[in-house]
Amino acid sequence: MLRIHTLRLPLSNLSLISSQSQKPRLNNNYRTMMNYTKAASSQAFKNKKLLFRQLFEKDSSTYTYLLADVAHPDKPALLIDPVDKTADRDLSLVKELGLKLIYAINTHVHADHVTGTGLIKTKVPSVKSIISKASKSKADLLIEAGDKIQFGDFFLEVRATPGHTLGCVTYVTGDGSDQPQPRMAFTGDALLIRGCGRTDFQIFSLPKETLIYPAHDYRGFTVSTVGEEMQYNSRLTKDEEMFKSIMENLNLPYPKMIDIAVPSNMVCGLQDLSVKPVDTSSN
Amino acid sequence: MLRIHTLRLPLSNLSLISSQSQKPRLNNNYRTMMNYTKAASSQAFKNKKLLFRQLFEKDSSTYTYLLADVAHPDKPALLIDPVDKTADRDLSLVKELGLKLIYAINTHVHADHVTGTGLIKTKVPSVKSIISKASKSKADLLIEAGDKIQFGDFFLEVRATPGHTLGCVTYVTGDGSDQPQPRMAFTGDALLIRGCGRTDFQIFSLPKETLIYPAHDYRGFTVSTVGEEMQYNSRLTKDEEMFKSIMENLNLPYPKMIDIAVPSNMVCGLQDLSVKPVDTSSN
Repeated sequence: MLRIHTLRLPLSNLSLISSQSQKPRLNNNYRTMMNYTKAASSQAFKNKKLLFRQLFEKDSSTYTYLLADVAHPDKPALLIDPVDKTADRDLSLVKELGLKLIYAINTHVHADHVTGTGLIKTKVPSVKSIISKASKSKADLLIEAGDKIQFGDFFLEVRATPGHTLGCVTYVTGDGSDQPQPRMAFTGDALLIRGCGRTDFQIFSLPKETLIYPAHDYRGFTVSTVGEEMQYNSRLTKDEEMFKSIMENLNLPYPKMIDIAVPSNMVCGLQDLSVKPVDTSSN
Repeated sequence: MLRIHTLRLPLSNLSLISSQSQKPRLNNNYRTMMNYTKAASSQAFKNKKLLFRQLFEKDSSTYTYLLADVAHPDKPALLIDPVDKTADRDLSLVKELGLKLIYAINTHVHADHVTGTGLIKTKVPSVKSIISKASKSKADLLIEAGDKIQFGDFFLEVRATPGHTLGCVTYVTGDGSDQPQPRMAFTGDALLIRGCGRTDFQIFSLPKETLIYPAHDYRGFTVSTVGEEMQYNSRLTKDEEMFKSIMENLNLPYPKMIDIAVPSNMVCGLQDLSVKPVDTSSN
């Protein structure tokens, strides 16, 4: 599926690359350095620097994540799950840190808040919105399992984690000695800390030390690990029958934001988007 | 001020050491290794591991921080600014992670929530509470500027940052190649992200890349750096006259929790503490 490759993106040396090209893009200097010794490679990694910020929206207990390659001359950045209410806060931080925001990404179509991606695109038109093809939503780029989202010398890989919605994906930082260690998984609503989801097959196949960054937490936790969730997640440690029974008997109320949030989130958070986003699903 | 040294603490090889002994305690194996080469020292550092968790209490927008040396056999841990309401959550996490909680620490006497230190001590009696001597509060250990709080092979150093209260201190992770890089400053209410405090003399003398972890954030930020706050903190970038004027004209309402919180927080959060904490100020 080289779908992404067919898009003409004005991204200079920042590109969204498909899973078929397994190696992340590295600049030539770095690649050459890798051929020498492990010590040199370790030195090269030291010069790389991931900026990472976890941001919180209190009304919906949503986490938004800012990631950037600050060692790259352009300081390319992306936001995962931005919220409309806090879009100005996020853009102000991006500006203060001297970053170039290139992607505004959703893990899925949220039912509890309106995504900030559309609002961000009206304020910074060069930003591309991203969501999964399986979400059936509109965005500039529609990704699927195995795709890689490149920002500078770092990348996120896409894992399909349906369950909460059919289109839910988890974004995981790259594998390899030139990528951040331990890896970080942005799980959206597929896996919350000590709760929810039935997507353990995809997420729990990651190394135990992988850091888990969900879309929400209602008890004040900010991060977990794959190992912890395998051991202590109150839902995912049950067998399939028990899990089904728990989920069927939650008796959750009708989500108060769902009728506003879902239609908006199908179109980057703006129902009357003056600049219509490109539907790439036909490409 | 070798005050701390006069205490008989049942801490085995975990100790609170004063600033007079400049070197943090290192086990003999590690110290020997340090004498060889830089490569060996770098290897030794790789075996060290700081576990760090930022936790949130929604009603008072308070951050609680959990730090532990998980490479040490005892996995000694400490909590900074625990809240009474979330004490059970914090202790449950400590247990799940297999840590041994040795200290429950406050940055100052909070006026907006009741500290969890007393509650934690009733549930885990071996935990020692810590606050500054200048706070005039009761705790097992009363620290002052320059003191070091050791947990395993890591330590926090104490900086006096009065202003919000006379007894406010900032805890900073240790300096040195065997300590976490970049350093982390737990600023309490002395410096909030983009706001408050007049303690820049102490905090802003740290390296610009030092990570800033405050006691609260009301807009959803979770971390900043010294460099960012020097540049963008809306209060601390003003001159002294303007700062005074801003602070005098905030017209903040009377803190709703102050009459309950302050008297409780003078005695580890428990006004009727059955086991009276040791007053070490006379030692």
